Amino acid sequence: MTSAQSAPGTLRPGGRTARTRAAVRDAVLTGLGEHGYPGLTVEYVAEHSGVHKTTLYRRWGGIEGLVADALELAGEDDWSPPDTGSLQGDLRALAREAADSFTDPVQAAAPTAIIAAAFQSDRAADALHAFYAERFSRCETIVRRAVERGEAPPGTDAGAVVRAVSAPLYFRLFITREPIGHALADQAAATVVAGVRAGVFTAAADS
Amino acid sequence: MTSAQSAPGTLRPGGRTARTRAAVRDAVLTGLGEHGYPGLTVEYVAEHSGVHKTTLYRRWGGIEGLVADALELAGEDDWSPPDTGSLQGDLRALAREAADSFTDPVQAAAPTAIIAAAFQSDRAADALHAFYAERFSRCETIVRRAVERGEAPPGTDAGAVVRAVSAPLYFRLFITREPIGHALADQAAATVVAGVRAGVFTAAADS
Repeated sequence: MTSAQSAPGTLRPGGRTARTRAAVRDAVLTGLGEHGYPGLTVEYVAEHSGVHKTTLYRRWGGIEGLVADALELAGEDDWSPPDTGSLQGDLRALAREAADSFTDPVQAAAPTAIIAAAFQSDRAADALHAFYAERFSRCETIVRRAVERGEAPPGTDAGAVVRAVSAPLYFRLFITREPIGHALADQAAATVVAGVRAGVFTAAADS
Repeated sequence: MTSAQSAPGTLRPGGRTARTRAAVRDAVLTGLGEHGYPGLTVEYVAEHSGVHKTTLYRRWGGIEGLVADALELAGEDDWSPPDTGSLQGDLRALAREAADSFTDPVQAAAPTAIIAAAFQSDRAADALHAFYAERFSRCETIVRRAVERGEAPPGTDAGAVVRAVSAPLYFRLFITREPIGHALADQAAATVVAGVRAGVFTAAADS
């Protein structure tokens, strides 16, 4: 192991090193993309990660634990939300990024499989919830900057704003099963900006 | 058979009468609610509909065909969108209706199972697409009335408006896995009304 791989924080309890965990995550995400959640097996993950099946069972418990941990690790990246200088520009870039990632079949495969898995596995649902909660909390800086610039009223619910921008894209992808693209992304961003300006997001919502 | 049951349009090709079809639909929806799509079997549908297994296979082909037809028949109801006298009132009522139906576990079970099934079955995905296309086309009257009342600019994309209102609810239910309620429904409606007033929905989008 290199010193980077054994640095504090990358060595997990139970001796699960960062390298092993990353190899397992890659195998899980590849397998989800290829076979979907119902078709993913511990055997597949063992074969594609080089980690023995008994080790996978011991450390992750099985497929549910493997999927949850892969998603947790996937969330530990250095992604940061767009910073274009305006609320509309930032929200549009955010929505376009989501549209682009889900219209690329290679990029879309694993996330789609995890969204599907959440219908069958409570652990996958919890992991998905945690992934998006963390992801959207990073996005809230978009709204904070907009408030500072005077583009959004103080007290605007940043979490609700960034979720509202993504919602129409996911809704058409996974519920109504309709095509999406940049025009829909731009429309979603413009709608939410209009809502922000009208003060809709300063009122209390459920979340 | 009564004359109503054998009226033109209710007798399906292949002798699939309205009564048989409704019994099968009820069994499919109940089974989806109880066991989800992965757990639904032709045996279950036979037992709960009183229709013989071989008949189910011959007429519907199997589980995929049964689910698709159940959804098609579920869409043939007399539901009509709310008519409160204002765009905001109509969109709010529409969003609250969706929120209510998905926060009631009994009502939510079958639709949730069909949304899940669409990840595993192209036929279920096509049926879901057709169901929502028809459902949202009924909702477009809300926007037409708003244009007539001067609440929405002429040329407003009615389909995009009614989808945008529902999107945040479904997004939190099935993607971010967060709670929903009337406050979120009202926020979604108010956001879209602000977008409509700002002319966001008169520009061309993807759909």
